[in-house]
Amino acid sequence: MGQFDFNRLRRLEDAEAIRNLIASYGPLADSGDASAVAALWTGDGSYSVGDFGVAKGRQAITALIESDMHQNLMKQGCGHILTSPHIILGNDSAIATNHSIVFRHVDDRYETWRVSANRWQLVHTDDGWRVGHRDNRPLSGDERARALLSL
Amino acid sequence: MGQFDFNRLRRLEDAEAIRNLIASYGPLADSGDASAVAALWTGDGSYSVGDFGVAKGRQAITALIESDMHQNLMKQGCGHILTSPHIILGNDSAIATNHSIVFRHVDDRYETWRVSANRWQLVHTDDGWRVGHRDNRPLSGDERARALLSL
Amino acid sequence: MGQFDFNRLRRLEDAEAIRNLIASYGPLADSGDASAVAALWTGDGSYSVGDFGVAKGRQAITALIESDMHQNLMKQGCGHILTSPHIILGNDSAIATNHSIVFRHVDDRYETWRVSANRWQLVHTDDGWRVGHRDNRPLSGDERARALLSL
Repeated sequence: MGQFDFNRLRRLEDAEAIRNLIASYGPLADSGDASAVAALWTGDGSYSVGDFGVAKGRQAITALIESDMHQNLMKQGCGHILTSPHIILGNDSAIATNHSIVFRHVDDRYETWRVSANRWQLVHTDDGWRVGHRDNRPLSGDERARALLSL
Repeated sequence: MGQFDFNRLRRLEDAEAIRNLIASYGPLADSGDASAVAALWTGDGSYSVGDFGVAKGRQAITALIESDMHQNLMKQGCGHILTSPHIILGNDSAIATNHSIVFRHVDDRYETWRVSANRWQLVHTDDGWRVGHRDNRPLSGDERARALLSL
Repeated sequence: MGQFDFNRLRRLEDAEAIRNLIASYGPLADSGDASAVAALWTGDGSYSVGDFGVAKGRQAITALIESDMHQNLMKQGCGHILTSPHIILGNDSAIATNHSIVFRHVDDRYETWRVSANRWQLVHTDDGWRVGHRDNRPLSGDERARALLSL
């Protein structure tokens, strides 16, 4: 019974940690903390961003945030919005599924720049939960984006 | 004390399960998994969608997702965004309140099509938490939409 | 071990309570429940809303919701959307970070009026978790808004 409760606690803590990990992406991206964004991933983790290609490893993910595109977006004003994920929890791995939206500030108004599907493969490491792979693709009618959201 | 902890665990698990149930709606709707959307509801559950009327029972809810309107929305590109709900938890029932937004892809940009209030009546069944009734109404100045959000 | 589990339960309950507190802001603001909005704060809590200044104490926060600006927004149709917060939990205090978006209904469409950074200082009181201070600032290129999101 103690062991049973312990496993139930552990599962709740896992869900909580995964949710907090994903909830940190938007604030870290919008405050431009490139190394902290990269540290959400495992050392050899990867991030596939629609048609921009795949960033492999923390250095490549850091470079995404340090890129002119991202830095200009920040200066212009942007919001990286992520929804609370649906989580399928395994023992030391998990799949999370959610939406992300990027708003950008243009001429005193906000434009909805991207509305995307996201699928996160998460792994439990010695340092806690990290992203093994994140797949992001705009929901612009592309069947591959819809497929990311299948549960 | 053991029993006490057990109840506290159970309440946390209930909140987690309800959050995950609601978090699955957007991914399932956007990937077009009509029967899985319907299975979020109880067998005789119902879904009131603003002025579109009330879908009663799983067959009617399946039909919403299989409708030309929803299928065209998917092909065009859409995102069904739901916020993390406020949850009032009873023993075997709960009320959750949140917002939903539907973005649609039009001419290479995203249009905010609907911003709605949602009130979910949830019930704990032998198969876990399910939706007994969901009430959705666009926040377009309609007093009935605002009333759905009163806590 | 019992004590250990108890602390782990308490931390999960704290995160859950903080998430539910923040999740209630949007529904309460959009349903116009001014006194319930104010009651999310401590008696001497404060709410800094970008360039609108700082509302100090529950009476001032009540006045924000009862203001002509907010009441007109509600009549016109609006949605106060908040993302699931990143939470850094202390013993009796916490920092939560998230985004908020205000949509308003204009001429049969929805306009993205504000996309903001939020930083919440929360305190555990005898009545449960309350907001000690909330800092909100639009992400319009302002460095101070980005700074609110640093973790």
